[in-house]
Amino acid sequence: MKLIVQKYGGTSVKDTERIKAVAERVVSCAAKGNNVIVVVSAMAGETDKFVKFAGEITDNPNEREMDLLLSSGERVTSALMTMAIQELGYESMSFTGRQVGIITDSSHTKAMIDRIEADRIKAAIKENKIPVVAGFQGINELSDVTTLGRGGSDTTAVAIAAALKADLCEIYTDVDGVYTTDPRVVPEARKMDKISYDEMLEMASLGAKVLHGRSVEFAKKFNVPMVVRSSYNDSPGTLVTKEDGDMENIVVTGVAQDKNQARITIMRVPDRPGIAATLFESIAEANVNVDMIVQNISSDDKATDISFTVSTAEGPKALEVAQKVSDKLGAQGVNMNPEVAKVSIVGVGMQSHFGVAATMFETLSKAGVNIMMISTSEIKISCVVDMNQSELAVKELHKVFDLAKQ
Amino acid sequence: MKLIVQKYGGTSVKDTERIKAVAERVVSCAAKGNNVIVVVSAMAGETDKFVKFAGEITDNPNEREMDLLLSSGERVTSALMTMAIQELGYESMSFTGRQVGIITDSSHTKAMIDRIEADRIKAAIKENKIPVVAGFQGINELSDVTTLGRGGSDTTAVAIAAALKADLCEIYTDVDGVYTTDPRVVPEARKMDKISYDEMLEMASLGAKVLHGRSVEFAKKFNVPMVVRSSYNDSPGTLVTKEDGDMENIVVTGVAQDKNQARITIMRVPDRPGIAATLFESIAEANVNVDMIVQNISSDDKATDISFTVSTAEGPKALEVAQKVSDKLGAQGVNMNPEVAKVSIVGVGMQSHFGVAATMFETLSKAGVNIMMISTSEIKISCVVDMNQSELAVKELHKVFDLAKQ
Repeated sequence: MKLIVQKYGGTSVKDTERIKAVAERVVSCAAKGNNVIVVVSAMAGETDKFVKFAGEITDNPNEREMDLLLSSGERVTSALMTMAIQELGYESMSFTGRQVGIITDSSHTKAMIDRIEADRIKAAIKENKIPVVAGFQGINELSDVTTLGRGGSDTTAVAIAAALKADLCEIYTDVDGVYTTDPRVVPEARKMDKISYDEMLEMASLGAKVLHGRSVEFAKKFNVPMVVRSSYNDSPGTLVTKEDGDMENIVVTGVAQDKNQARITIMRVPDRPGIAATLFESIAEANVNVDMIVQNISSDDKATDISFTVSTAEGPKALEVAQKVSDKLGAQGVNMNPEVAKVSIVGVGMQSHFGVAATMFETLSKAGVNIMMISTSEIKISCVVDMNQSELAVKELHKVFDLAKQ
Repeated sequence: MKLIVQKYGGTSVKDTERIKAVAERVVSCAAKGNNVIVVVSAMAGETDKFVKFAGEITDNPNEREMDLLLSSGERVTSALMTMAIQELGYESMSFTGRQVGIITDSSHTKAMIDRIEADRIKAAIKENKIPVVAGFQGINELSDVTTLGRGGSDTTAVAIAAALKADLCEIYTDVDGVYTTDPRVVPEARKMDKISYDEMLEMASLGAKVLHGRSVEFAKKFNVPMVVRSSYNDSPGTLVTKEDGDMENIVVTGVAQDKNQARITIMRVPDRPGIAATLFESIAEANVNVDMIVQNISSDDKATDISFTVSTAEGPKALEVAQKVSDKLGAQGVNMNPEVAKVSIVGVGMQSHFGVAATMFETLSKAGVNIMMISTSEIKISCVVDMNQSELAVKELHKVFDLAKQ
């Protein structure tokens, strides 16, 4: 008997017909003798509707209130899914974030999980009930509702799988698995059978929306095998797992792009120690996540330009903080470019192969794509480019690294 | 400085425009130096949508899951309303049923309030925050979400007003107050300035939908003055309060009808002691509320007919139980008539006036309305009639008791 956590995203539960279809899938897994825990997202469109409502009321919604608002959709789905499973003759029980015991910090709208108090869900499994967990949410020590950020239901699923030492965590979505790049951009894109946690982590953080990055971190940390697969068919999907020998033979695994990026530059900051610290501490205090950071030496060596990227939504907030820091430090000024995208190549094989970066830069250059910022890690190289050139860049990189071939 | 609880129903908060309009009303009350607590319902249509979803999945939704589902709408409104109040520059904070400390029993979908642990809301008021409470919901001792039944947000408002010893509980709706009867049926119906708790209680239980009966019971028990008024204008509404001398001069205060009734009859039950107990205990165990009960002696004195009414929705459930009891007791059989309505007259003055019942029966008789069941209390007389004759009955009774005149 295996313990399997199955997470179903918004399109998989978009209406009651789909909820019933998913319930069939759940009980057929249970009927094979497995213990199943279901984690659900809000019905597709619900969360956007809530965001729209909030936007009609205020430009600056209070984050505690946003969390109460946003967490409602998952509760609705969990109640309906539980009913659908019960209707098929199986015992089932819904769990809110609170009831499943997900205790988080108080960073509303992007809370981090502190611990999971899983007694109640364990008891339900022991009683042969199929627990249906409202994803995306927890509570803080004040007993206020928190949410884990967009895509947080993936994190809920993996965190529960880790806490309960599940054998497998299946992430059901509307695509067949993880592709070498977005098939809507490159029709030759190929579905991968397997990808390492680290590669998936990079792909996720680089804008491949199929999995939420934090869920992969969790899976890696607790060694939870994940499968990304479609709730619309029986295709086996993509296994996300520990790195193995095979994987290193492939230099580049995938190409990702992220158009949800804004670049902010503080120009001619007087070049003295502690400047970066001052800037990024202020930005962290404003609860803004910084992605790439590049600092260039200026021509006269007395001042420096600092550029960084944030998500488009957080651009204005980050710009405001950057402006204040700029004034304080006596810099020349601040500008923001929201029309940028990040294009990245990922692969564990990069660690043992030379010249990958050079191939990337040369390819982009030949295609006439201007590189604004570069950032590298052991298994990925990212370039910030003009948003209009981003898809061209993805196509050329997919071709040059021969990703359409197995 | 007064403490005022304001409850806004679904049509008052049906979209974000209305939510903003209500927020203006709330802060204008606060600006006059009052402490205001807001209680909100789900946006109009939301609860019905959830019920529809559940109905698409199962004919017998689990009640624990129904409560999780149904409680979501109020949470959404409370978050949005809090944002709208904050946007006007006032401190505000949302409270779920749990956070406001409404502890109920475990009768899911129609829970009773055990107690209110109001420390947190008291602290918020002390900090000059305007609390916005999600109505209709509480939690039981297991920490599961419960709901208080349709219209339960009124109960939430009065219960909080009672727990915090508020000076006034305002129930905002889309009508101007309590009318002598439904103005859609009788255009001459008159808005009352004042009505006693007991009269209001009867009117509510008899189908005047403007207030939830339980909320009036609560208000009476804890002597909370309530005002029913419109959120669309500044009309002063109807005060629901303790009986006073003036009231007794009016014999009949109002006429109510309730079409949400089904009559069930068990025919020829062997007439021995304990039969009614057996029947109604079984029905109570099925969590069905019985309204009127009439037992007739049969012609041969060896068997009796027992009739009772329940809400239309609970009819099938009650019929099933009645059928079992009928078999057990050796009765002849059971039938149900869902096409009935209850027409009632209400007034504290009845206690000191003779002949009111006679006038009622005579009026119905002259109008050709057949009376199927009769039930009386100190301040009301109810008749079950054919649903098709119900509006005629209301019109004639409104006329004969001269209710259009002040």
